[in-house]
Amino acid sequence: MKYRISVRVMPKAGISDPEGKAIHDAALQLGYGEVVQVHAGRSFEVEGEYDSRDAAENGAQKLAERLLANPVIQTYEIVAVEELR
Amino acid sequence: MKYRISVRVMPKAGISDPEGKAIHDAALQLGYGEVVQVHAGRSFEVEGEYDSRDAAENGAQKLAERLLANPVIQTYEIVAVEELR
Repeated sequence: MKYRISVRVMPKAGISDPEGKAIHDAALQLGYGEVVQVHAGRSFEVEGEYDSRDAAENGAQKLAERLLANPVIQTYEIVAVEELR
Repeated sequence: MKYRISVRVMPKAGISDPEGKAIHDAALQLGYGEVVQVHAGRSFEVEGEYDSRDAAENGAQKLAERLLANPVIQTYEIVAVEELR
């Protein structure tokens, strides 16, 4: 079966996030003073052929560990696993 | 109240996605032949002071339109609105 897996990759807490900081600064410049903090990360959608939902989740997890995230500075999260028709 | 809003920004359908393509190629090289397609986008977490959940969602939407996404080539989605204590 074909599945679509959403993976979110974010900077680890305490790791500097210059892009998030730049967006926060820009938000303040534009007058959005209510914004307190911005974190910037990556979002991936992986589509693949897997035997089951569990296999799809495991497959995406391996991919996240090897390709999508740098575990030294980032955390990843499998956000959704969706079966496609 | 303080809220954390998650925003996902992805390339529009039909817009070239060289990063997704590069990750797909790398996945195949590494032996993950089951992977059919990869899309690469951005994930943002915005924390801010808002009067209500609706105000938080509207605020993040404005920010997405002005700062986080390029509406010509990207779509954005408010993925979650969470009240922080």
